[in-house]
Amino acid sequence: MQRRDFIKAAGAAAITAGASTQAGQAYAKDKPEYSWKMVTTWPKNFPGLGTGANHLAELIGQMSGGRIEVKVYGAGELVPAFEIFDAVSAGTAEMGHGAAYYWKGKSEAAQFFTTVPFGLTAQEMNGWLYYGGGMELWQELYAKFDLVPAAAGNTGVQMGGWFNKEINSLEDLKGIKMRIPGLGGEVLKRAGGTPVNLPGGEIFTSLQSGAIDATEWIGPYNDLAFGLYKAAKYYYYPGWHEPGTMLEAMIHKPTFDKLPDDLQAIVMAAAKVVNIDMLSEYMARNPSALTTLVDEHGVDVRSFPPDVLARLRELSGEVVAEIAEKDEFSKRVYASYQKFLKQSQAWSKISEYAYLNARDHA
Amino acid sequence: MQRRDFIKAAGAAAITAGASTQAGQAYAKDKPEYSWKMVTTWPKNFPGLGTGANHLAELIGQMSGGRIEVKVYGAGELVPAFEIFDAVSAGTAEMGHGAAYYWKGKSEAAQFFTTVPFGLTAQEMNGWLYYGGGMELWQELYAKFDLVPAAAGNTGVQMGGWFNKEINSLEDLKGIKMRIPGLGGEVLKRAGGTPVNLPGGEIFTSLQSGAIDATEWIGPYNDLAFGLYKAAKYYYYPGWHEPGTMLEAMIHKPTFDKLPDDLQAIVMAAAKVVNIDMLSEYMARNPSALTTLVDEHGVDVRSFPPDVLARLRELSGEVVAEIAEKDEFSKRVYASYQKFLKQSQAWSKISEYAYLNARDHA
Repeated sequence: MQRRDFIKAAGAAAITAGASTQAGQAYAKDKPEYSWKMVTTWPKNFPGLGTGANHLAELIGQMSGGRIEVKVYGAGELVPAFEIFDAVSAGTAEMGHGAAYYWKGKSEAAQFFTTVPFGLTAQEMNGWLYYGGGMELWQELYAKFDLVPAAAGNTGVQMGGWFNKEINSLEDLKGIKMRIPGLGGEVLKRAGGTPVNLPGGEIFTSLQSGAIDATEWIGPYNDLAFGLYKAAKYYYYPGWHEPGTMLEAMIHKPTFDKLPDDLQAIVMAAAKVVNIDMLSEYMARNPSALTTLVDEHGVDVRSFPPDVLARLRELSGEVVAEIAEKDEFSKRVYASYQKFLKQSQAWSKISEYAYLNARDHA
Repeated sequence: MQRRDFIKAAGAAAITAGASTQAGQAYAKDKPEYSWKMVTTWPKNFPGLGTGANHLAELIGQMSGGRIEVKVYGAGELVPAFEIFDAVSAGTAEMGHGAAYYWKGKSEAAQFFTTVPFGLTAQEMNGWLYYGGGMELWQELYAKFDLVPAAAGNTGVQMGGWFNKEINSLEDLKGIKMRIPGLGGEVLKRAGGTPVNLPGGEIFTSLQSGAIDATEWIGPYNDLAFGLYKAAKYYYYPGWHEPGTMLEAMIHKPTFDKLPDDLQAIVMAAAKVVNIDMLSEYMARNPSALTTLVDEHGVDVRSFPPDVLARLRELSGEVVAEIAEKDEFSKRVYASYQKFLKQSQAWSKISEYAYLNARDHA
């Protein structure tokens, strides 16, 4: 799921009610030392992503003993979803919560800090960012816009999407109208498909009416709430186009730099806690939602055929490599990312993958 | 790697020098409000695990602005490695850093809070603990001992171990003398092998002299530093016996309960930060250490044969299920863990595993 979808998705998505968006109240002194606004790209309380932003605000309030109070704004409440980068850059809001690939207009390289087709998994992304040089590059990019970035949540491996026709061969991708934005859409286009950009609120009816043949969204937890199983027969895996979507927190740098050391440490730690908590939440809720989709709603869960995946992988390699050609900075980010990806692939083969194979398939 | 190994491992392991074990100094006021001792089961500054304990102390110092100062003690400095549970329980030290499976003498169920053969991966463990009911069970167990537990680090999937003979069939496990403690050792025994318990400091010479045929340890990052490649030819994968070893922080409960809310939040957040950071460090350092082992030291990396893994999986199921029969609490933990494992397996097949298969193997 990408870009403008969230604006109109609010109505269609099942909203988790009751989550507080005003953190630190229980701990607040008479008056907080810092009253911050957090603008987000999500509808207020959007499950997983929006509630993750709430969680971030609450943690900062709790750990700072109410010295920092962060008020969370859903998309469009203070600024439109895709203006939060500029709003925090200008200091209109002190914080934001979104995803770096939304800002590819600032630098194509921003996409590497969220996810790219056939790229790093969530766990590998953490390795690259925290111990592989990725975070330093992200900081360098955002510093140009007076921003401090932090990884702040991950969806894990997404699903490949909902289809109303079977995908049995590369031929079946030809001419398919699929709502899939960004790099994934470009890959589909090169495979002969027709990527369509649709806001979240129009996906359901477009799929039901046959205006589109397929759509990707997130994974079982969010897709179940979104009701997509009512409009499509087949649920394909894996989510090759978004294998570990990293969410971000951004902080207005002049504001952050003026904080005392302890509050700086608290803000950055809060983002890391949300990073691990959000992925953990998806790890717990996707499986039970999958069970509901299959057992209660009769969803037909299918794997893309190997030759289709092999071709998509080949095309993804081309599309991602082209980012490096955009500018000098993107070239450096691509080089760092590719080096980490290559070593992660060698390690994953004998660790995570080999173990899961032995546990679940042998 | 388990139990008493660390005591004597200090000498053999390459020690990362220079890491501060006295946190919060840069932020400390004239006198901290709380001066804590953290006792650990690791040699001081042991790479990954011991440095993770240092990191935890530093984070608490930074985030609390020096209000809590935590001094880290290596194994044997204040109390022996395997007396830290009792020391923190009694309040002799305010904190500890170790691994719950060391305390199976208190309850067999404790092993589920670290790792069990053919169990949950690191990411799945986080899901179970934070959003699947696991942490509540861990808290219930530790509360009986006046302790508050927290997950505080993970090694990720470990390696299967170092062997001086090839494992081509189940026959090759018969009579094999392997240093592998705990549940993994019990599984090997039922497969016809002879598990041996050896402290870390005796492993190298025992392997070199032929007193043992094989040993498990951790993974490339630690194993390279330990020099095991000089004493064994074959490096087998995957680490079926420890698929995502979770480290723990424990805090003396009466001490924790008296902390103000903000400091409680800080201590728990610091543990979560170490949880994600340590795994991220292993994700970054294992791959490069693996490259060094193969390219510079000519290590022969091999997979256990499928029929061997299938038999070990079967035996692991039996051994793990027997824990549930020990007592009522262990039965409840086993039931919760198994339910989460089952749903994780179904989800992993179409997400993490299917994605890695498409990315690296298709």
